[in-house]
Amino acid sequence: MMYHQAMNLSLSCESRFPIFSTKFRKTIHLKPLRVSSGPESRDSGTKTLTDKLILILRTVPDWADEIKERGMQQKRTLYTHEKWVEHRSSLRHVRHLVSSFSSRVILSLIPPVFFFTSVAVVIASYNSAVALEWLPGVFPILRSSSLPYQLTAPALALLLVFRTEASYSRYEEGRKAWVRIIAGTDDLARQVICSVDGSGSGDELVIKDLLLRYIAAFPVALKCHVIYGSDIARDLRNLVEADDLSLILESKHRPRCVIEFISQSIQLLKLDDTKRDLLESKMLHLHEGIGVCEQLMGIPIPLSYTRLTSRFLVFWHLTLPIILWDECHWIVVPATFISAASLFCIEEVGVLIEEPFPMLALDELCDLVHSNIQEAVKSETIIRNRILAKIKLHEFKHSPNGRHRS
Amino acid sequence: MMYHQAMNLSLSCESRFPIFSTKFRKTIHLKPLRVSSGPESRDSGTKTLTDKLILILRTVPDWADEIKERGMQQKRTLYTHEKWVEHRSSLRHVRHLVSSFSSRVILSLIPPVFFFTSVAVVIASYNSAVALEWLPGVFPILRSSSLPYQLTAPALALLLVFRTEASYSRYEEGRKAWVRIIAGTDDLARQVICSVDGSGSGDELVIKDLLLRYIAAFPVALKCHVIYGSDIARDLRNLVEADDLSLILESKHRPRCVIEFISQSIQLLKLDDTKRDLLESKMLHLHEGIGVCEQLMGIPIPLSYTRLTSRFLVFWHLTLPIILWDECHWIVVPATFISAASLFCIEEVGVLIEEPFPMLALDELCDLVHSNIQEAVKSETIIRNRILAKIKLHEFKHSPNGRHRS
Amino acid sequence: MMYHQAMNLSLSCESRFPIFSTKFRKTIHLKPLRVSSGPESRDSGTKTLTDKLILILRTVPDWADEIKERGMQQKRTLYTHEKWVEHRSSLRHVRHLVSSFSSRVILSLIPPVFFFTSVAVVIASYNSAVALEWLPGVFPILRSSSLPYQLTAPALALLLVFRTEASYSRYEEGRKAWVRIIAGTDDLARQVICSVDGSGSGDELVIKDLLLRYIAAFPVALKCHVIYGSDIARDLRNLVEADDLSLILESKHRPRCVIEFISQSIQLLKLDDTKRDLLESKMLHLHEGIGVCEQLMGIPIPLSYTRLTSRFLVFWHLTLPIILWDECHWIVVPATFISAASLFCIEEVGVLIEEPFPMLALDELCDLVHSNIQEAVKSETIIRNRILAKIKLHEFKHSPNGRHRS
Amino acid sequence: MMYHQAMNLSLSCESRFPIFSTKFRKTIHLKPLRVSSGPESRDSGTKTLTDKLILILRTVPDWADEIKERGMQQKRTLYTHEKWVEHRSSLRHVRHLVSSFSSRVILSLIPPVFFFTSVAVVIASYNSAVALEWLPGVFPILRSSSLPYQLTAPALALLLVFRTEASYSRYEEGRKAWVRIIAGTDDLARQVICSVDGSGSGDELVIKDLLLRYIAAFPVALKCHVIYGSDIARDLRNLVEADDLSLILESKHRPRCVIEFISQSIQLLKLDDTKRDLLESKMLHLHEGIGVCEQLMGIPIPLSYTRLTSRFLVFWHLTLPIILWDECHWIVVPATFISAASLFCIEEVGVLIEEPFPMLALDELCDLVHSNIQEAVKSETIIRNRILAKIKLHEFKHSPNGRHRS
Amino acid sequence: MMYHQAMNLSLSCESRFPIFSTKFRKTIHLKPLRVSSGPESRDSGTKTLTDKLILILRTVPDWADEIKERGMQQKRTLYTHEKWVEHRSSLRHVRHLVSSFSSRVILSLIPPVFFFTSVAVVIASYNSAVALEWLPGVFPILRSSSLPYQLTAPALALLLVFRTEASYSRYEEGRKAWVRIIAGTDDLARQVICSVDGSGSGDELVIKDLLLRYIAAFPVALKCHVIYGSDIARDLRNLVEADDLSLILESKHRPRCVIEFISQSIQLLKLDDTKRDLLESKMLHLHEGIGVCEQLMGIPIPLSYTRLTSRFLVFWHLTLPIILWDECHWIVVPATFISAASLFCIEEVGVLIEEPFPMLALDELCDLVHSNIQEAVKSETIIRNRILAKIKLHEFKHSPNGRHRS
Repeated sequence: MMYHQAMNLSLSCESRFPIFSTKFRKTIHLKPLRVSSGPESRDSGTKTLTDKLILILRTVPDWADEIKERGMQQKRTLYTHEKWVEHRSSLRHVRHLVSSFSSRVILSLIPPVFFFTSVAVVIASYNSAVALEWLPGVFPILRSSSLPYQLTAPALALLLVFRTEASYSRYEEGRKAWVRIIAGTDDLARQVICSVDGSGSGDELVIKDLLLRYIAAFPVALKCHVIYGSDIARDLRNLVEADDLSLILESKHRPRCVIEFISQSIQLLKLDDTKRDLLESKMLHLHEGIGVCEQLMGIPIPLSYTRLTSRFLVFWHLTLPIILWDECHWIVVPATFISAASLFCIEEVGVLIEEPFPMLALDELCDLVHSNIQEAVKSETIIRNRILAKIKLHEFKHSPNGRHRS
Repeated sequence: MMYHQAMNLSLSCESRFPIFSTKFRKTIHLKPLRVSSGPESRDSGTKTLTDKLILILRTVPDWADEIKERGMQQKRTLYTHEKWVEHRSSLRHVRHLVSSFSSRVILSLIPPVFFFTSVAVVIASYNSAVALEWLPGVFPILRSSSLPYQLTAPALALLLVFRTEASYSRYEEGRKAWVRIIAGTDDLARQVICSVDGSGSGDELVIKDLLLRYIAAFPVALKCHVIYGSDIARDLRNLVEADDLSLILESKHRPRCVIEFISQSIQLLKLDDTKRDLLESKMLHLHEGIGVCEQLMGIPIPLSYTRLTSRFLVFWHLTLPIILWDECHWIVVPATFISAASLFCIEEVGVLIEEPFPMLALDELCDLVHSNIQEAVKSETIIRNRILAKIKLHEFKHSPNGRHRS
Repeated sequence: MMYHQAMNLSLSCESRFPIFSTKFRKTIHLKPLRVSSGPESRDSGTKTLTDKLILILRTVPDWADEIKERGMQQKRTLYTHEKWVEHRSSLRHVRHLVSSFSSRVILSLIPPVFFFTSVAVVIASYNSAVALEWLPGVFPILRSSSLPYQLTAPALALLLVFRTEASYSRYEEGRKAWVRIIAGTDDLARQVICSVDGSGSGDELVIKDLLLRYIAAFPVALKCHVIYGSDIARDLRNLVEADDLSLILESKHRPRCVIEFISQSIQLLKLDDTKRDLLESKMLHLHEGIGVCEQLMGIPIPLSYTRLTSRFLVFWHLTLPIILWDECHWIVVPATFISAASLFCIEEVGVLIEEPFPMLALDELCDLVHSNIQEAVKSETIIRNRILAKIKLHEFKHSPNGRHRS
Repeated sequence: MMYHQAMNLSLSCESRFPIFSTKFRKTIHLKPLRVSSGPESRDSGTKTLTDKLILILRTVPDWADEIKERGMQQKRTLYTHEKWVEHRSSLRHVRHLVSSFSSRVILSLIPPVFFFTSVAVVIASYNSAVALEWLPGVFPILRSSSLPYQLTAPALALLLVFRTEASYSRYEEGRKAWVRIIAGTDDLARQVICSVDGSGSGDELVIKDLLLRYIAAFPVALKCHVIYGSDIARDLRNLVEADDLSLILESKHRPRCVIEFISQSIQLLKLDDTKRDLLESKMLHLHEGIGVCEQLMGIPIPLSYTRLTSRFLVFWHLTLPIILWDECHWIVVPATFISAASLFCIEEVGVLIEEPFPMLALDELCDLVHSNIQEAVKSETIIRNRILAKIKLHEFKHSPNGRHRS
Repeated sequence: MMYHQAMNLSLSCESRFPIFSTKFRKTIHLKPLRVSSGPESRDSGTKTLTDKLILILRTVPDWADEIKERGMQQKRTLYTHEKWVEHRSSLRHVRHLVSSFSSRVILSLIPPVFFFTSVAVVIASYNSAVALEWLPGVFPILRSSSLPYQLTAPALALLLVFRTEASYSRYEEGRKAWVRIIAGTDDLARQVICSVDGSGSGDELVIKDLLLRYIAAFPVALKCHVIYGSDIARDLRNLVEADDLSLILESKHRPRCVIEFISQSIQLLKLDDTKRDLLESKMLHLHEGIGVCEQLMGIPIPLSYTRLTSRFLVFWHLTLPIILWDECHWIVVPATFISAASLFCIEEVGVLIEEPFPMLALDELCDLVHSNIQEAVKSETIIRNRILAKIKLHEFKHSPNGRHRS
C-alpha cells in the first residue's frame, strides 16, 4: 500500500499541478507516468485528500531539491593563496557556523531531519500520554534497551564514513583525471607550437592556428559533456569558428568530435612520421580522460551500497526515540535532531561529492588552458629570438673580431 | 553428523525432485553427486522425513537465490545527468525505503534474518518458560553479560566494513579496467581511421572496414566472456560477418581470438613499420584488460577472509539473544531482527559487488564504442574537407588575386 | 628461563623423536640446533620430565601446523561463473558453518583458543574456590574493572583489522603482478607470432617455435620460484626440451634464466631493429613481475608490526577472564572462547594471506598461457587466410568482371 | 542577526582601525567591503559598542592566525640520518611535550579551545546556581543522557580522522609529484649533458649551458608558483640571466614560461630527430608536475566535507558540558578542555596539511637539483676520460707490443 | 621553566660526562650546544643537583635508544619459504611472547611505560592517603567520570592506527621503489649483455664489462646513501675498480655519480642510435628510484601529525589514573601499565617503520643484482650456442642429406 501511495505521489502532483510539476519533472524520483490530466482531475474526493496531503508533504523536499540543484550549478573558483590563508584561519569555525543557515547541504537536510524529529515528538508525546495514564492501559510505553544500538553503532558509523570516503575517492579520481587532461592538452599544444616553425609556409600557420584552437576546445567540450546544463555553444564560440562549432554541436559525442578535428589537423601538418606518431600517441591521454569522466558520470557507487546506507540510517533513526526514551525522556527530541542532523549530513555530503564534476572548478581550468596556449604562442618568437641573440653574442665575442672574455 | 545432513540436503532434493532441482543445479553449493535416483527413492521412511524437512528448509533460500540471480542478469544502464539529480534528491530516502520490499538484496536476506529471528523467538520463549517456572528447575535461564560483546563489536564492525570495502575496491578495479579498455579501443580505432586514408585503394578500405569491425567486437567479446549467461552470438551478429563469428565462437578464448583478428588485419594493412609497431603496441592495453577482467573473475577475495566474516556473523547472531535477554527480554526478537538485517545486509552487499561485472553497464559501454566508431568513420571525410577548405580559403585570400584581410 | 624452555622445546623433540621431528624440521620455529642425539638421550630424569611435558604441549600445535601446511599446498582453482553463483547463494552461511570443522584456518586456531580457554577455566576455578572460601583468605579474587579494556578495545580491533588489510593488500599486489605477467607474456607471444611470418624460412620457424615455448615456460618457472615445494622439472617437462630444462634447473635463478633464453632467441630472429627493440622492451614487464613476486616473498610486513599484534592479542586474552569475572562468572569460559576464536581468527587470516602466492591459482593461470599460445599459433594461418579471402572477394566484386553490390 | 554581526565584524575593524586591518586584510574571511571610512566613523554609539566587542573578540584569533601564517613561511629542511635518530629517540615524547607551548598548531587552537572551555564554565556555573537554588525555580538544570553522544562518538571520530587522512593523502600526492618533478629534471639534465658532446662547437656549448640553467630554473619557478609570498626574482637571480628573468617575471604563468625556454633551446640544439623527440617527450613529466601542483593548490577537499567536520565538532562541543553535567559536575570544564584540545587539534592538523607545499622542504630540493646539475657538468669530462683511459690501457695490453695479462 | 630544564638536560650531560655523551651526541634531541666543559664544571651546587637528577632520568631513555639504534643497524635477511612456514606456525604466539624480553621495540618502550606507571602509582598512593584521611581534608581525591574518555577513545585509537598505517604505507612505498630499482638494473644489464655481442671487438668487451660493474654498483651506492652508518667503500670494493671508487667517494651525490658512469659508458658503446636512446631512457627509472628514496628519507610524515599523536597519548595517559580511580582503585597501576604498553607500542612501531630502509633487506637485494648479472654473463654464450645448435640440427634434418622426421 505504501508503494502505491508513493506512486500516486508523483502521479498526482504531476497531473493536478502542471505548473508546479513541470519545474520538477526531472527531479521526480519515480518514472513519470503518462496520464491524461483530464479524466484524472475528475475523480472523487477521497483521492484528492491523499493527494493534497502528498502535495503538502512534497513541498518541503522539492523546495530543498531546487535549492540544492541551483547550488550545484554555481561556478566554482580555484583556490588562491589568499583563500588558503582564510581557509585555515582560526575564525573558520565561526564562518562555517554562520554559513550553516545559507548552506545548501544544510537546507537539503531539512526534510529528513524534520521528519525524524517529528517522529521523535510523536513517540515522546505518546509515551508521555501512556505514562500519565491518559491512554487506556492496553497501550504499552515504547521503550527498549539501548544495548543493540550500542553494538551496531560502530557498524553504522563505519558504513557512513566509508560511503563518504568512496565518494571522496571518486572526487579525487575526477580531479586527477583533469590534471592529466590539462597536462595532456598543454603538452600537445607546446609540441605543436615547437614543431611548426613560425617561419613556415602560410598553410602550415593556418593549420597550426586551427589546431591550437581545437586543442583549447577539447577540455571545454569535455567539461560541457560532464556538467549538467552547460551551454557548449556559448563556451566554444570564442574558440572555434562558427562552421566547426555547428559540426561539433551536431555530433553525438562532442569531445570525441573535437579529437577528430585535432587528429585530422595533425595529419595535414607537414611533419616527419616519427613526430606525427608522437603527437598522435598523445591522443590516448585525451581518450583516457574522456573514459574516466564518462565512467565516473555513468557508473555510480553500487546502488545496493548506497541504498544500504540510506536504509540503515532511516531504520536507525525511526527507532532511536524508542531506544532513548528510558534515558532521555523528552530530550529524545533534541537528541534525535542532533543525531539525524549529524549522520544524514555525512550521508548527504557523500552523495553530493559522488558526482565530482560540478564540484570542480572546471570552467577556470579550461580558461587557463586557453590563456596558456595564447601566451605560449605569443612568447614563442620572443624566446627563440632571445636565445638566438645570445648565441650570436657569444659567436661575436669568440670571433676574431670580438673580445674573448672567458 | 551435521555435515552429513548437509550432504543429504543437496543429494535428496536433486534425486527426488528432478524438475525442481534442475533449475537450481548450478546454484547448489555442494559438489553434485552422481546418484541414480532409482534405488534412492526406494529407501525407507526415516530418511524421507529428514528429506522433507530439508526440502522445506531449502525452499526459502532457493527462492531467494532465484530472485537474486534473476536480478544479476538485469541490464544496468549508465547514469545520466537526470538520474544524478534524482540520485541526490531529498526524496531518495523515501524511494530507497519504498523499494526495500522489491529489492533483491533485501529479499536474499530473508533466509538468514528469518532464521536468526526464529532462534531469538525460541530462546525468548524458552527463557520466559523458565522464568514462569513452566519448566523443571533444572533448566537454566540463557543469559549472559554483554561485556564480551561490547569488546568484540568494533572488531566485527570493522571486519564487515573492510570486507565490503575490499569488494568495493574490486568493483572500482573492474570499472577502471573498462575505462582503459574503452579508451584503448577508441584510440586504436581513431588511429586506424587516420592512418588509412579514405582515398586509399579498395583493398585498404576493405581491411580498414574489417579492422574497425573487429575493434568494435573486442569489448563485446570480453563482456560476454565475463558476464554469466550472455549470448555472444547474438551480440556479435551485427558487428562481424557470419564466417568470422563462427570462428570466434569455436575458439576456446573468444576475446583473444578477436585480438588475433585485429592483429592479423593490422599486418595486412599497408603501413610503414613504425606506424604498425605503434598500432601493435596498443594491443598490450587490450591484453591487460583481459587480464584484469579474468583475474577479477577467477580470483575472489581470499575465501578464508570471506568465511571468517560469515562465521563471525553467524556465531554473533546465534548468541545475541542470550546476551540481550537480561536487558531486553522479549525485545530480543526485534533487536535480533534489526541487528541481523543490518549486518547481514552489509555482508550481502559485500558479496554482491565482489564480482563487479554484472553490476557495470557493460552493454551500454560496448554500444558506445560501436556508435563512436561509426560516427568517427562518418565524420572523418567531412572534417578533413572542412579543414582543407579553410586552408584553401586562406591561400585564396593571401594569393595575389585574393584580398588580404589580416 | 621461559626462553630456555622454548629452546629446549625444539631441541628435545628433534633429538629424541627423530622420526617425528624430521617431518617437521622445516616448520620448527627456532634455528635447528645441531645436537648429536646420542649423549643427549643419556642425560637424567629431571630434564626428561620437562621434555615430555613440552612434547605433549607441542603435539597439538605441530598437528595443527601439519594440517595447515598441507592445506597450503592444495591446488587452487580459478573461479567460474557457476562458482560465483554458489559463492553468493543464500546458503553460503550454512556451507561456511558446516565447513568450519574441516577448515584449516579453524584447525590451526585450536592451539591458542584451547590455551586461552584453559586459562579462563583455571582462573574461573580459582575465583570460585576463593569465593566459596575453599582457599585461605590470603588469596584474593582475581577481578578488575572492565573500563581499561573498553578504552583499548577499539585500538586492538583497529590494529587487528588493519594488519589483515595490510596482508590483503599484499595479496592484491600479488594478484595484480600476475595480471601483468600473464598479459605481458600473452602480448609478447602474440607479437612474436605476428612478426615471424608463417611462410618464413625453416630456421625462423624453429626459433619461433622455441621462443614460444620459452615464453610459455616463463610464468611456470616464476610460479615454481615463488611456491614452496613445487616441482619445476615436472611442470616444465612438456614445455621445453630436456637439454634446456637441465640448463634451467642448474641455474641459480630459474625465471631469469628463462628470460635469458627468450632474450637470446629474439636476438637470433631476423627482425628489423625497431621491432627487436620493441620485443626486448617488453622484457621489463617480466623483470618487474619477478621483482614484485620476489619482494612480496622476501619482505614480509614489518615484523615489529606483526609481533605487536600478536603480543597485544595474547596479553588481552590472558587478562580477559579477570576483567570479565565480575560480570560473567563462569560464563568467562565461553566468552573467552568466543573472543579468542574471533580475534585470533582475524589474525590467522591476516598471517595466512600475507604470503599470497599459495592462495592464487597460479597453476591454472600458467596452463592458460600455454593453451592460449597454442591456440594462437593454430588459428594464426586460418585467420590470415580468412581475411585475405575477403579481400580477394572484394577485388573480384569490384573488378570489371565481378558484380558491384554496394 | 548573528550573520549581520559577523559582517560587521570585518566591516568595522577595517574601517575603524586601518593600521590594524591592513595587516590582516588578506586573512579576513568575508568579502572585503568597500566602505569609505569617513562617514562610517561618524555613526552613533550603539554600533560602536558592538564593534568594540567584536574587535576584542577578534584579537585572539587574529593573533593566533598571525603566528600560524608566520610559521607557514618558515623554511623546512630535509631530514638527515641524524634527525631520524632524534626522531625515534625515546625522549621524543618529552620533546613534543616541551615544544607544545611554542607550537603554532597549539597556539592556533587557543581561540576555539578557550571559547568552548568558557562555554563549559558558563554552563557549569548556571547549573550550580540552579542546583543551589540561587535562581528562581523556572530555570531547569541543563543536563541530558550521554547515550546519544555515545552512539555518535564513533562517527565523529571517524569523520575527523578520515578528514585528516584525506589531507594527508594530498600531502603525499604533493610529495610524490615533487619526486617526479625532481627525477624528471635530473634525467633531462643528464640526457642533455650526455647528448651534447663537450667537444662540440661553441654554439652548442652556449645552448647547452643555457639549457641546463633553464632546467635548474624550472623547479624553482614551480616552487615560487605554489608557495605563498615567495620571491621568484631573488631565487632565480643566480640561475638565469637578467634579461631572461625579466621575461619570466612578466609572463602570466612562470613555470610554463620556463618550459618554453627549455623547449626552444632543445629545438636549437643540433640533435638527430629521435633524440630531440625523446627530450621533448620528457616535458610531459614537467607539465604533469605543474598540473598536480596547481590542482592541489586550486582544488581543496570539498568544502562541504570540511564544513561538515567543523560544524559537527562545534555542535558536539557546545552541548558536551550539558551531556557531561550529571556525571562530571565541575569536571566538565577540564573534560571539555581536553576533548576540545584533542579533537580540534586533529582537525587543525588536517587543515594545515591540506595545502601541502609550505610543509615540504621545496627550497632544499630545488637547491639539490642545481648542485646536482653543476656536479654532473663538472664530472662529465673526468668520467669520460677515465673510461677512455681504461679502454686505451686495455688496447695497449692486448696490442702486440703490450703484455697479455688475462 | 620546563623548557629550560630540557635544554640543560642535553647541555649538562654533554659537558660533564664527555665519555658518556660522545656516544650519544648524535642522538641528542636538542641542537648540540658548543660549551667549554671547563668553566661549566666549576659552577655551584644548586645546578649540580638538577643536573644529576636529569642525568639519572636520562640514563634509561639513553640506554633504550642505544639498544634501538644498534637494532636498526642489524642486517635484515630476505624471507625464504622455510621462514614463511615458521612465520605462520601456530607456535608463533609463543615465539613472539618469548622474544618480548629481547625485543628492541619493547625495550625502547621502557621509558614511557615506566614513567606513566610511576605516575599511576603516585596518584594511587595520594588517593589512598586521602581516602584513609592521612592527609588534611583540603586535599581532594583525584577522580573523574570516565565518560569524556569513552567519547574520545575511538578518536585516539583511530589516530594511532592511522599514524601507523601512514608509516606502513611509506614502508610499502620504499619496498616498491626497490622493486623498480632492482627490476630496472636487471633489465638494463640484460639489454647491455644482449646488445654487445660476445664476439665483438676487445674495446667493446672492456666497456661492456665496466658498464655491467657500474650497473651492479648503482643499487649498492643507493643503499649506502639511504642507510645510516653504511660503509660504501667496503661495499663497492669488489664491484668497481679503485680509481673509479675514489671518484665516487669524492662526489657529493654518489648514486648520481654512478649513473654518470653508466651514462658515459653507454655513450662510448658502439650501438645504433635507437638502441642507445632506449638504454638511456631506462635511466629515468634509476633517477626515480633515487627520488623516491631521498624523499622518503628527507620528508617524514608531517611533524604536526606525529606530535599530535604523541601529545594526545601523553595527556591521555597522564590523566588515565584519575579517570580509572573510581572503578579500579589500585588496579589503576596495572591498567595504566597495560594501556601505556599497548598504545605506546603502536606509536613506537609507527615511528620505527616511518624510515623504511633500515627495515628492508637491501644488502641481500644488492647482492642478488650482482650475482644475477654474473650468472647472466656466464650463461649468455652457453644459451646462444644451445639455440644455434638446435637451428643447425633442424637444418640438417631438413636438408636433402638429413632425415625428415615430422
